[in-house]
Amino acid sequence: MDEQARVWTAALVVIGDEILSGRTQDKNVGQVALWLNDHGIRLAEVRIVPDDPERIGATVNELRAAHDYLFTTGGIGPTHDDITVDAIAAAFGVPVVVHPEARRVLEDYYRDRPGGLTEARLRMARTPEGAELIPNPTSGAPGVRIGNVYILAGVPHIAASMLEAMTGKLEGGRPVVSVTIGARAPESDVADLLRETEGDHPGVAIGSYPFFKDGRYGANFVIRSADGELARTTSEDLSRRLREAGYEPVYGGI
Amino acid sequence: MDEQARVWTAALVVIGDEILSGRTQDKNVGQVALWLNDHGIRLAEVRIVPDDPERIGATVNELRAAHDYLFTTGGIGPTHDDITVDAIAAAFGVPVVVHPEARRVLEDYYRDRPGGLTEARLRMARTPEGAELIPNPTSGAPGVRIGNVYILAGVPHIAASMLEAMTGKLEGGRPVVSVTIGARAPESDVADLLRETEGDHPGVAIGSYPFFKDGRYGANFVIRSADGELARTTSEDLSRRLREAGYEPVYGGI
Repeated sequence: MDEQARVWTAALVVIGDEILSGRTQDKNVGQVALWLNDHGIRLAEVRIVPDDPERIGATVNELRAAHDYLFTTGGIGPTHDDITVDAIAAAFGVPVVVHPEARRVLEDYYRDRPGGLTEARLRMARTPEGAELIPNPTSGAPGVRIGNVYILAGVPHIAASMLEAMTGKLEGGRPVVSVTIGARAPESDVADLLRETEGDHPGVAIGSYPFFKDGRYGANFVIRSADGELARTTSEDLSRRLREAGYEPVYGGI
Repeated sequence: MDEQARVWTAALVVIGDEILSGRTQDKNVGQVALWLNDHGIRLAEVRIVPDDPERIGATVNELRAAHDYLFTTGGIGPTHDDITVDAIAAAFGVPVVVHPEARRVLEDYYRDRPGGLTEARLRMARTPEGAELIPNPTSGAPGVRIGNVYILAGVPHIAASMLEAMTGKLEGGRPVVSVTIGARAPESDVADLLRETEGDHPGVAIGSYPFFKDGRYGANFVIRSADGELARTTSEDLSRRLREAGYEPVYGGI
């Protein structure tokens, strides 16, 4: 297979009763998606599942087999509802151990803090047997990698710092390039020209995202391709067709 | 089965390349979750899938069988990338038809607008055969119900108006009551008392969600139960234990 053409994919499992209850707005899908795309890996699927070990395990086993990479967010803290490590160890059929390096990291982190490394805090050194650590520059307790599964924190800025620590370390293909063009056009007025433009440029996908802003309808058109030059020429073609239809294209979107 | 004890569940399929690319932040999970809980229905699972008819169809067929209700958001506009109706009709094994009532709604809506009911706009009257409409008080084009599947718009304020139009019309059980208590406590310092409190109150789940705010660590504890009285007494017990440990509980969270 042409190495350039290989599409690398990842899935993300968001572990979170707090997301499913509507109490908390997820912020990890977006940042994981953007980070993956920078590495030429496509986020192909997201599942948000409850804090239920069997559901987590079954979902992880299904998705780690279907994709190059699987990420999880949530459930790796010190409290009783942090069950991700146990659920994933069970899914891999391995025991949970205290990871010696994680213990050292936590000993350092809590050395000068009240209470030191308590039993509850030591819980954050537990990993599935055979796992490696993902550094956490923000708050000590590391993330965990086992096989192609990357276990991140749920708190968005901590998840972000774990991603940052992994930057450049995952193999991928070509990032998808996207160009956004906005127009003050009702979507339904430009439906035909969008379809024709996409049809005339194989290898490009055009998404249309309507909005209502300042009392007027409009839409942003997102041109995506793994071939940057193709995305550029398609965006020029779309702009020309929008002008011909009487709409001024706005690069970068509205 | 005790009718009080029956748990009603729903799943949500978010159809959206734009979410998976990281370009757009989803806002539908939260509002669907809260609306469902008001109806005594638990959002048990969310999947975010690409704009791919086969993936949409397979996901819809799996989840509509597993839950009382299935909701979808996205992909029901007038453009070429709006493929949800076709994908779900195929999943049900029925043809796509122009729904007479939807055509009338759109004729009314576009009567006095430039261009009238164009071919592209009429696309929004297409439904799987045998479907009913979900009113859209915001922008004309209706949502669609077929079987236990509810097909909503992706634009959040339009999805919200479709939910509003369905308020009170779905059968459910008892809403989950949640009480939030915050404390300026490092999560790891109260892990034991949280576990003990949850253990002493069967039928209650306690989630712990840490934060870092104004230079200090803290956490919000969310007590959830379908029995409101049980949630209340548990929250009092938790508050008492937090005070004993030296932390002031903050009702409503921090």
